[in-house]
Amino acid sequence: MKFFEKKLQGKTVYDGKILKLEVDTVELPDGTTSLRECVRHSGGAAVLCVVDGKVLLVKQYRYLYGKELYEIPAGKVERGEEVAVTAARELKEETGIEAELVPYLKIYPTTGYTDEIINIFIAKNYKLDGEQKLDDGEFLSVCFKPLSEVKRMIESGEICDAKTVSAIYKYLSENK
Amino acid sequence: MKFFEKKLQGKTVYDGKILKLEVDTVELPDGTTSLRECVRHSGGAAVLCVVDGKVLLVKQYRYLYGKELYEIPAGKVERGEEVAVTAARELKEETGIEAELVPYLKIYPTTGYTDEIINIFIAKNYKLDGEQKLDDGEFLSVCFKPLSEVKRMIESGEICDAKTVSAIYKYLSENK
Repeated sequence: MKFFEKKLQGKTVYDGKILKLEVDTVELPDGTTSLRECVRHSGGAAVLCVVDGKVLLVKQYRYLYGKELYEIPAGKVERGEEVAVTAARELKEETGIEAELVPYLKIYPTTGYTDEIINIFIAKNYKLDGEQKLDDGEFLSVCFKPLSEVKRMIESGEICDAKTVSAIYKYLSENK
Repeated sequence: MKFFEKKLQGKTVYDGKILKLEVDTVELPDGTTSLRECVRHSGGAAVLCVVDGKVLLVKQYRYLYGKELYEIPAGKVERGEEVAVTAARELKEETGIEAELVPYLKIYPTTGYTDEIINIFIAKNYKLDGEQKLDDGEFLSVCFKPLSEVKRMIESGEICDAKTVSAIYKYLSENK
């Protein structure tokens, strides 16, 4: 059986810096109507970089979770930008590293209320000696952590970021 | 170095059915200010259920992505509900299955603009013979797919849902 929801009407309730919020009325498969709260986002790009068994991570304060989180380097796709360009740009800005980036994994972070797509790349042939060059208002520190420690930190709930967790477990499932 | 962002003021721009949107002004570590667009969400719970090498999946239309997606059974935590109760309730409603649920993985779907936490459980000692009992306005179909096919569908980009991808790759990394 195939399901579909048809948009009947929509309004933009907020149009901001990194997201837009639209509230749409839709027709459900049984002909009744419902509301859909839609966060519109331009998408994200991230990079898994493993060097000699160590994972490149950035640590930054995440206001929504009220604490510092470890994540793989990532950022928001700017309007009209290719995701591979975003990934390379964020990797360079946040860590100074340049690399050949190969598509690795694509995730929809939370399917009920955002249209964000996060494209994750894996770094090959990296040049590690560049300098970090953060945007204004961006504060983060960079580290390499052994895969075994990153795995332990996921298991203990210290690392929860979905793009990081899914990329690391993909990597672990392929490299044992 | 430790980073922190201090809330200076905030306003609620939308308060809806499944999310609230707040826009806060924060003080950054260097004393400048910035905006934080904050989707407030009560959290999600999901269940990985693998029976004889086959993964329990639900297929439903996801309006934000404009297509049907395969995902592990999941739902939104209701106010005051324990996440394990949410997980058991959603599993039973969506698939009819009852099981003992063991905490498996916790993910933050997208760290820049939502505070949602998705708690994933793994099903043990399942009873498969129950009946689906969907909420009004909920339309989905249930299937079991072999792990190898689910892996192929992730690799081909047919399955992208972050909770599903991370749970499956965790499982694959532990069961080879």
